[in-house]
Amino acid sequence: MNLEKYLAEKTEAVNKGLSALLAREDDYPQGLHKAMRYSLFAGGKRLRPTLVLASAEAVGADSREALNVACAFECIHTYSLIHDDLPAIDNDDMRRGRPTCHKVFGEAAAILAGDALLTAAFEMAAATGSADKGSVIKAIGELAKAAGSTGMIGGQVVDIESEGKDVPFPVLEYIHIHKTGELILSAVRCGAIIGKASGDELESLTRYGRAAGLAFQIADDILDVEGSSEEMGKATGGDEKKGKATYPSVIGMEESKKRAAELVGMAVEALSGFDEKAEPLRAIARYIVSRRK
Amino acid sequence: MNLEKYLAEKTEAVNKGLSALLAREDDYPQGLHKAMRYSLFAGGKRLRPTLVLASAEAVGADSREALNVACAFECIHTYSLIHDDLPAIDNDDMRRGRPTCHKVFGEAAAILAGDALLTAAFEMAAATGSADKGSVIKAIGELAKAAGSTGMIGGQVVDIESEGKDVPFPVLEYIHIHKTGELILSAVRCGAIIGKASGDELESLTRYGRAAGLAFQIADDILDVEGSSEEMGKATGGDEKKGKATYPSVIGMEESKKRAAELVGMAVEALSGFDEKAEPLRAIARYIVSRRK
Repeated sequence: MNLEKYLAEKTEAVNKGLSALLAREDDYPQGLHKAMRYSLFAGGKRLRPTLVLASAEAVGADSREALNVACAFECIHTYSLIHDDLPAIDNDDMRRGRPTCHKVFGEAAAILAGDALLTAAFEMAAATGSADKGSVIKAIGELAKAAGSTGMIGGQVVDIESEGKDVPFPVLEYIHIHKTGELILSAVRCGAIIGKASGDELESLTRYGRAAGLAFQIADDILDVEGSSEEMGKATGGDEKKGKATYPSVIGMEESKKRAAELVGMAVEALSGFDEKAEPLRAIARYIVSRRK
Repeated sequence: MNLEKYLAEKTEAVNKGLSALLAREDDYPQGLHKAMRYSLFAGGKRLRPTLVLASAEAVGADSREALNVACAFECIHTYSLIHDDLPAIDNDDMRRGRPTCHKVFGEAAAILAGDALLTAAFEMAAATGSADKGSVIKAIGELAKAAGSTGMIGGQVVDIESEGKDVPFPVLEYIHIHKTGELILSAVRCGAIIGKASGDELESLTRYGRAAGLAFQIADDILDVEGSSEEMGKATGGDEKKGKATYPSVIGMEESKKRAAELVGMAVEALSGFDEKAEPLRAIARYIVSRRK
């Protein structure tokens, strides 16, 4: 299993899909579409859409059936970054190695470009052609729930409310599970749903996605302390400066690394009933904590 | 046909639907859910969801099948108001007779409450239980397109870009058709789609929705000049102050009223092939220009 090659292939498929599904840069109004594409094509890892595709493959489906839903996850992820970076929220100037959306296009355009990407996600998902209609509706519902007020946005709100405060561990875990974990879990589940997974398969993949999602955010916290801003493409050390609750700040660096490694083990273990078609998912779980950006 | 009674009944059904479908105020995180409900239950006219229901009825369906989609339209409309009112966009302090969302909950919460309502719209629509699955997916796709970068958000962007400029008539028409008209048209179409309209019925209702949507925005422009801020629940005269392009400012007040009346005539005319089940749609078209708020 060559993960690097696999990730490159899926990234290419997702980028092509996004470009075909999204309005073009010269579609009116051009400023809006430029802002949307500026943030969407800024060299993201495409982790969430790749998980959608890998999960569909793990249950034996043709991952092309899940491409629209995969692209929808990337739109939602990107919109959430644009809005998080806004002056009224995290007030970040750099993202993925270049100035944030509002720095280039202004605040109003960044708000609306984020809104438009969030909306486009559902248009793309609804345009899934080949998959079973009931599965498409189920995936749209799951995606919306995971991205919504009791999912990703809920985590973001608690994160903001907790800044500069002494945060107890359960609140920290709530933030991480919701702000990042829910969308990763949902990506895994939606790929499986589009791939018509059995009940048992979906349950195992849910355990995988939950562990991988939390591991990812812990690894992100660790990278914010130990990573270089060059590799990350954004300022590092920002969590501490903003007084953000992170795993290293609450349970310490060593314990955080141990916890991340345990979660990766749990994720891989959850796939014990799957054959070699789940190999990409296993490799991605390991990559989540070994990555340098 | 007692329109007042009809609107009151549908408003009640929509309010009940929204309350049941949306996370409660005491669901965690409470601050977020309070902000969402503050703006959603601020006494809006529920015009868009009522159009969804009336359109489903016009093609002979049980409007309860379209309730989730109707509620989705109101969530999208409300999110668009919250984001429009933000300091970075229109910077409005009052809406529907009370302080705007960011005035009460702060800017970050208002951005995220808007995002959450937009997301909830699609969760609600996907949770439509009784209707045909293909119709639900079609409605979700139409709603997303109408609300997206080449629909409502596109209109909003061009509106902002045009502020303080001498706007030619085609640009003004683009703004009005997209910023307001698209969502109204889409509400009418989605009700018909959920109601399993025939191709001919959908075509007629599309003509109705297009005319009614533009008439609504022209009437809004007129009310911003002639309405009282007490009746409107927000500051009036704001368009002129902000240098916004409006029908009265570009083609004059008299011509604007004539145009609005013509459009209402066109909307009613489009329904000539429908029986008395379309009477609410006809009455709503007339109400759109006769309303005082």
